[in-house]
Amino acid sequence: MVAKTDLSGFNCSLARSLDIVGDWWTLLILRDAFLGADRFGEFQASLGIAKNILARRLEALVDQGMLERAGTAARPTYWPTQKSRDLLPAMLALMQWGDRWTAQGRPPMRAVDPAGNEIAPVTLRDAGGKTVPPADVRFVPGPGATPRTRGYMAAVQAKVAGD
Amino acid sequence: MVAKTDLSGFNCSLARSLDIVGDWWTLLILRDAFLGADRFGEFQASLGIAKNILARRLEALVDQGMLERAGTAARPTYWPTQKSRDLLPAMLALMQWGDRWTAQGRPPMRAVDPAGNEIAPVTLRDAGGKTVPPADVRFVPGPGATPRTRGYMAAVQAKVAGD
Repeated sequence: MVAKTDLSGFNCSLARSLDIVGDWWTLLILRDAFLGADRFGEFQASLGIAKNILARRLEALVDQGMLERAGTAARPTYWPTQKSRDLLPAMLALMQWGDRWTAQGRPPMRAVDPAGNEIAPVTLRDAGGKTVPPADVRFVPGPGATPRTRGYMAAVQAKVAGD
Repeated sequence: MVAKTDLSGFNCSLARSLDIVGDWWTLLILRDAFLGADRFGEFQASLGIAKNILARRLEALVDQGMLERAGTAARPTYWPTQKSRDLLPAMLALMQWGDRWTAQGRPPMRAVDPAGNEIAPVTLRDAGGKTVPPADVRFVPGPGATPRTRGYMAAVQAKVAGD
């Protein structure tokens, strides 16, 4: 299985996100939950995953507040929480990337709004709504930057600036 | 290490994306490449990762067209390609999620445009630019849907509609 590296100590919100959702099954279980699956057997049928692994992943998702357990103890159901719904933009951006780079023009699934209008490709924007091309994105230390974060960022960026 | 499950056979662009980028190190290596790291030693210093694992991950990223190798054989450098730059919206959406749910109001890093304006939280929009709340997102079979995809989606969604 996965010998899990603890990334929660990294001072980086991407690393900490990956510490929660960074294994394949976790995101695929959430995908199925968004599609409407809510029972153990439904996740299992969709993913073809071993029962003990699925049980462990569902338990972890409940512990992390990503899924809420309802139903009865004998027949529990699992529902996405706000914390996991809030992950949908990242998951759709990842799905769209897969559509562009792995689907040979034939996306298996489309995400739409309730009227059936397709969700547009996720883009980056500034606070005013203007699109920011990926190549224009820069990174600066945030309020939670540690001296190590600042040191590393300064070192690699000074080099880039000096190119 | 990671006993890698092959997800490329799943008829799902999220699963296929995860098959390429779905381990922690891969996305963190790309993060560092976007920050300006381009040498083995820089990735190593940032990630504290074993050299053999880093070498394998860099090799895989080059093979998948995510990084381009330049420099000399003795002193190679690694540069993000368009394929990996195209992943930035997904990575930033994931970083922003971590900022909201794991950073206790103190994001370690901020993503900005060249003028220093912060990148806004990634949101989902329709083709006309109108914001679509995550709870309003639906999924429908795409042009690449297989009978199995259609069957699974119909089964879980019929149940939801019947709630």
